[in-house]
Amino acid sequence: MLEAALKSGAWSRRAVFEVFARHLPDGRRYGVVAGTGRFLDALEAFRFDDETLEFLRASQVVDEPTLEFLAGYRFSGRVDGYAEGECYFPGSPIMTVEGTFAEAVLLETVILSVFNHDCAIASAAARMVHAAGTRPLIEMGSRRTHESSAVAAARAAYLCGFSATSNLMAGRTYGVPTTGTAAHAFTLLHDSEEQAFRAQLDSLGAATTLLVDTYDVTEAVRTAVELAGPALGAIRLDSGDLAQMAHEVREQLDGLGAHKTRIIVTSDLDEYAIAALSAAPVDGYGVGTSLVTGSGSPTAAMVYKLVAREDAEGVMRPVAKKSVGKPSQGGRKAAFRELEPDGTAAAEVVTVSGEHPQGARPLQVPLVREGEVVGREGLVTARARHRESLAELPPNAHQLSRGYAAIPTVFD
Amino acid sequence: MLEAALKSGAWSRRAVFEVFARHLPDGRRYGVVAGTGRFLDALEAFRFDDETLEFLRASQVVDEPTLEFLAGYRFSGRVDGYAEGECYFPGSPIMTVEGTFAEAVLLETVILSVFNHDCAIASAAARMVHAAGTRPLIEMGSRRTHESSAVAAARAAYLCGFSATSNLMAGRTYGVPTTGTAAHAFTLLHDSEEQAFRAQLDSLGAATTLLVDTYDVTEAVRTAVELAGPALGAIRLDSGDLAQMAHEVREQLDGLGAHKTRIIVTSDLDEYAIAALSAAPVDGYGVGTSLVTGSGSPTAAMVYKLVAREDAEGVMRPVAKKSVGKPSQGGRKAAFRELEPDGTAAAEVVTVSGEHPQGARPLQVPLVREGEVVGREGLVTARARHRESLAELPPNAHQLSRGYAAIPTVFD
Repeated sequence: MLEAALKSGAWSRRAVFEVFARHLPDGRRYGVVAGTGRFLDALEAFRFDDETLEFLRASQVVDEPTLEFLAGYRFSGRVDGYAEGECYFPGSPIMTVEGTFAEAVLLETVILSVFNHDCAIASAAARMVHAAGTRPLIEMGSRRTHESSAVAAARAAYLCGFSATSNLMAGRTYGVPTTGTAAHAFTLLHDSEEQAFRAQLDSLGAATTLLVDTYDVTEAVRTAVELAGPALGAIRLDSGDLAQMAHEVREQLDGLGAHKTRIIVTSDLDEYAIAALSAAPVDGYGVGTSLVTGSGSPTAAMVYKLVAREDAEGVMRPVAKKSVGKPSQGGRKAAFRELEPDGTAAAEVVTVSGEHPQGARPLQVPLVREGEVVGREGLVTARARHRESLAELPPNAHQLSRGYAAIPTVFD
Repeated sequence: MLEAALKSGAWSRRAVFEVFARHLPDGRRYGVVAGTGRFLDALEAFRFDDETLEFLRASQVVDEPTLEFLAGYRFSGRVDGYAEGECYFPGSPIMTVEGTFAEAVLLETVILSVFNHDCAIASAAARMVHAAGTRPLIEMGSRRTHESSAVAAARAAYLCGFSATSNLMAGRTYGVPTTGTAAHAFTLLHDSEEQAFRAQLDSLGAATTLLVDTYDVTEAVRTAVELAGPALGAIRLDSGDLAQMAHEVREQLDGLGAHKTRIIVTSDLDEYAIAALSAAPVDGYGVGTSLVTGSGSPTAAMVYKLVAREDAEGVMRPVAKKSVGKPSQGGRKAAFRELEPDGTAAAEVVTVSGEHPQGARPLQVPLVREGEVVGREGLVTARARHRESLAELPPNAHQLSRGYAAIPTVFD
C-alpha cells in the first residue's frame, strides 16, 4: 500500500484514521481502554533502522523509493484518544490518528496489536475486580500466555485494580507492585512438607504465604501454624472445592489461634468463580489463565479505519466502505459521555458535527501533537481514572451475565 | 522459592521437571508441539544482566546470595523433548528438563509461556490447514494479538502448513515467506476505485491482488479486469456471503476471460468457515483473529511439574502432588507412539519404566546437553515433520467436531 501510494502521489494526502470496536467482547456490558501508555512508548520507538531496511531490501518487499521513505520515517501528525482506563462502548472512537496517509497507515498494526490485546485483558480484569469486592487480586498468569504479552497483561490488570503481579518484568518496566508464590515443586523438592515450610519461613519470615495442598491440607495447616506461629501471613489453596476448604481451613486456623492468617485461593479462577466465592472466608485471589486470555475474549475487535482524507483539491472528505457486511461511518468523530443529573452515565454520544452536547463529558484527550507525545501519564493516574469511569456507570454495568452494553451509543 | 532453596541447601538437588498438558484444547483430537526453536533461543539468552540485578536489588525482591546466584546463572543441565511439529496427546511429556532444582525451576515461566502460546496457535492452525485441503492459507492476524505474540503466531502457523504471513518480522526472524494485502483504506484514499486499482497495478503489476468489496463488487471486478487484463493475479473478498459471492465473481471473471485470476477470501475465517467454503470456487484463504487466538483455545494448558529429585542421600526419587483435584504422576517418563502394522498411530505410550515398546516410535529427542543446545533445526524441517506426524494419525483425528483424543494415552 505504501509503495503504491508513494508512486501515485496519494501518500501525502491528509488522512484521519479512527480506532473503534463494532461490538464489545461477547456479552459484556462495557470495555476498558488500555494500552495507551504502551502505544505512546511504541510510537516514539517506531523507526526503521539499517538492519530492518536491509532485510526489506534483500527480500524485495518494497522498492527503493519506499526504503528511502522508511529510512526517514518519523510520525509528525497528531493523535487524540480516550484517556487510558476510561470505559468504552460499541463505536467509541478510542483513538484518532491524523497525518499524511503514508505516516498514519504504517501505524495500523502496532496500534491494533496494543489495543486489541490490552483492552481485552483490561475488560476481563475489571469484571474480576468488581466480583472480588474489597478483596485483593494477584495477577499470576504469565505462564499461560506469550512471554511478552504476559508483561502487558500484568500492566492492564493493575490498571483495572489488581493489587499486584507475579511478573517481575512488569514491576521493572511499569512499576506494577510484585509478589511471589511458592509452587508445589518447592514442597516436593524437600524430604518432607515440614522441611519445605521451615526453609520458606527461614528465608521469608512468618509473613509469607505457605502452599498447603500438596499432600493433606489439614495436616499442612497444622504444621504451618506450628512452625510459623499465629503470625503466619497466609496459606494458599490451589485445588479442590475452594469454598468448602476455605471454611474448613478458616475454622482450623481460628482454632489454632491464627485469626489473622489469611486464606489465598488460586486454581483456574475467573470472574464467575470469584463471585461464587464471595460468601467463603477467602482473603485474596490469585488469577492466571482467565485473566491473560481475556476470560473467553482474548482480543477486543478493535479496527483501524480511514474515515476522512483530502481529495485532489486538498479538501477533507469523509470516506467509508459502502458494501455489505461491515458498514462504517465516515467522518472524524467527537465523543462524549452523556450524564444524568446525578452523574450516572446515560449514553455514549459519537458525533461527526463536533458539537459538545450540554452537560456531557468530553472523552478525547490530546496524546500526540506534531509527532511529539503530549499525553503521557503514570499508570497510577490511569488506574484512578478507571475507578472513576467505572463508578459513573449504571448498576447494570456490573452484571456478570451476558447482555447488552450498559449504555447505548448514540451516533449523531 | 529460589532464595529459600539456596538458604536451605536444597537448591543443588538434581531435579527433573516435565512439561505436559492434562487435556487437549477443548474438544480437539490432537495437539501440535510448537515453540521448541523459540525456547532454545530463549534459553541461550537466559541471563541476568546488571540492570536486571539492580532492579531486583533495589526492589528487594531477593537477597544478596540469590543475586549472586543469578549473576552467574547459566543453565548447565539437559533437556529432551518431542521434536517440534510432532503431535501430542493428554499427558504427553513434550519436554523434560533436568538440572539442579535452582537452575531448572527458573525456566518454568519462559518454557510455559512459549509452549502454552505456540502450541495453542499451532493446534488451531493444523485444523485450518486440513480444512483448506490443497488451497493455500495466509496468516494475517498480527493486528488481533499482542505485537510480539503476532510474530510467534506467524511462525507456528507456517510450521503447520500455512503458506505465508503478512508479518514481516516473522519473515525477518524466522524466514517465514511474507505477502501483503491492500486494505479498504487504500481504495478510500483515492478519489475513485479505478484510481486506487491503477495505482496498485502501476506499482505491483498485474499479478497483485485487488480488494473488490469497498463499494460494489461486480463493478469493482469489471474495473479490475479492464485495468489489469486477464493476467490479474487475484481479487479479494472481505465481507458478505463469501460462498455465494465467490460463485458470482468466478462466473464474472470467467466471462471476462480472466480464467486464471484467483479468488482470495478473508473475513473472520476459522476452520469451520474454511471447511464450509470447500465447495465454493475459492483459491486461497486469509486467516486472522481465529488463528492468533487459537480458535477458542488461546492457551494450551501446559504445566511444568517436578516429577523426580534427589533425596538427602543423593538418590533420585519420584515425586508428585497427592491431594485432590489435579493429580500428577511421579517419575521421569519416556514416550512412544505405538503404531499399527500399516503405520497408523494406535496409542501414546507414556512409561516410567523407560522400556521401548516393540514397534513403537520413540518421541523424545535430545535438545540440550550440559547446557549446550544440540537440537536446533530449521523451521522447514519441523514443518515436514509435522506433515508426517499428522499423516500417521487415524482418520478420526481430522474431524472438526468436538470429541476425544484421536488415540488414547496409555500410562505404563
